[in-house]
Amino acid sequence: MRIPEAIKKFVDIFSELPGIGPRQAVRLAFYFIHQGLAYETEAATSLANLRNIKICKQCFYIHENADGLCEICRNPKRNKKIIAIVEKETDLMSLESTGNFEGRYLVLGDLRKNGALETQQKLRLQSLKTWINEELGGKAEEIIVAINPSTYGDLNASLIIKEMDGTALKISKLGRGIPTGGEIEFADNETLKSALERRL
Amino acid sequence: MRIPEAIKKFVDIFSELPGIGPRQAVRLAFYFIHQGLAYETEAATSLANLRNIKICKQCFYIHENADGLCEICRNPKRNKKIIAIVEKETDLMSLESTGNFEGRYLVLGDLRKNGALETQQKLRLQSLKTWINEELGGKAEEIIVAINPSTYGDLNASLIIKEMDGTALKISKLGRGIPTGGEIEFADNETLKSALERRL
Repeated sequence: MRIPEAIKKFVDIFSELPGIGPRQAVRLAFYFIHQGLAYETEAATSLANLRNIKICKQCFYIHENADGLCEICRNPKRNKKIIAIVEKETDLMSLESTGNFEGRYLVLGDLRKNGALETQQKLRLQSLKTWINEELGGKAEEIIVAINPSTYGDLNASLIIKEMDGTALKISKLGRGIPTGGEIEFADNETLKSALERRL
Repeated sequence: MRIPEAIKKFVDIFSELPGIGPRQAVRLAFYFIHQGLAYETEAATSLANLRNIKICKQCFYIHENADGLCEICRNPKRNKKIIAIVEKETDLMSLESTGNFEGRYLVLGDLRKNGALETQQKLRLQSLKTWINEELGGKAEEIIVAINPSTYGDLNASLIIKEMDGTALKISKLGRGIPTGGEIEFADNETLKSALERRL
């Protein structure tokens, strides 16, 4: 059957989004249609306004500032000698929301699952090295490789550690163990092993 | 931490969509940002263009035609004496894609789970009755109540059947049984009972 062009176009684009398939995209189209004109316009505007988001020239996180630096990199209270390397912006946001990290970040962007860093990621690590040379005289205090502890995450973490070798007094990874609220019964062997080895 | 206004606004709106929570909305925002300006603009335009979609004055399905009628209602080859009453546009699309239904439809809109028809749904049923009176001389050949066979769906189906009583020679519901490719072992009792009673 013939589906209206406007819906087809919307579904084409929105079904490509992560976590949204063709069915969900159709549902969304009808949801917007039922919400009416004002809502559609507001949603479209909010999407179009994402173009105002810029990427920080230092850590590659997002911002809306005129000077090219994000809120964290332009904050003089942060300890710039400690750098957490994260994969995604959302990982950075999670770490920030703990309120327990006072250093700066480097956002690498989505890691591939084949165990090799992409050119863009190598360039970002290179820019961090240059920054450490220029701003910290060649040595950071600590680099925390805060990458998901999955099989491919660990692989990438090793690559990053190798790449950053010699640029910090200490290169660390996030601690492993039973998550708060988790159950020992359902923990996998690797997690339990870490939990036993790194007892509080 | 301070999140850029543009992202906050986007997340506010998109986290309200069915099947999309705050986390998924944030992921979408970053996805759009990484795709770049052209993609963002295209997606925003496709969303804004949904405003061109109109609702058929006869069956309440969607269309883009100037005369107020959808593709199905304006098609002279359809048998207008057989009417399928569906809940959602997507249900209509599923029935259409079988290619096995030649009648027209009535889209009711999302049914509530409390077992009462909303005013809008009553008005739509009323408009169908008026249409049957004017166009079919008071009696349709068949009304198929094609509502999901869930507990609340069945409840609503009974209400619809009661409402439409006397307007058709036959009022039917969709057949029940084991779905093609399904397994007897996992079928619930009601389904198996129907499958036994209505053997092919």
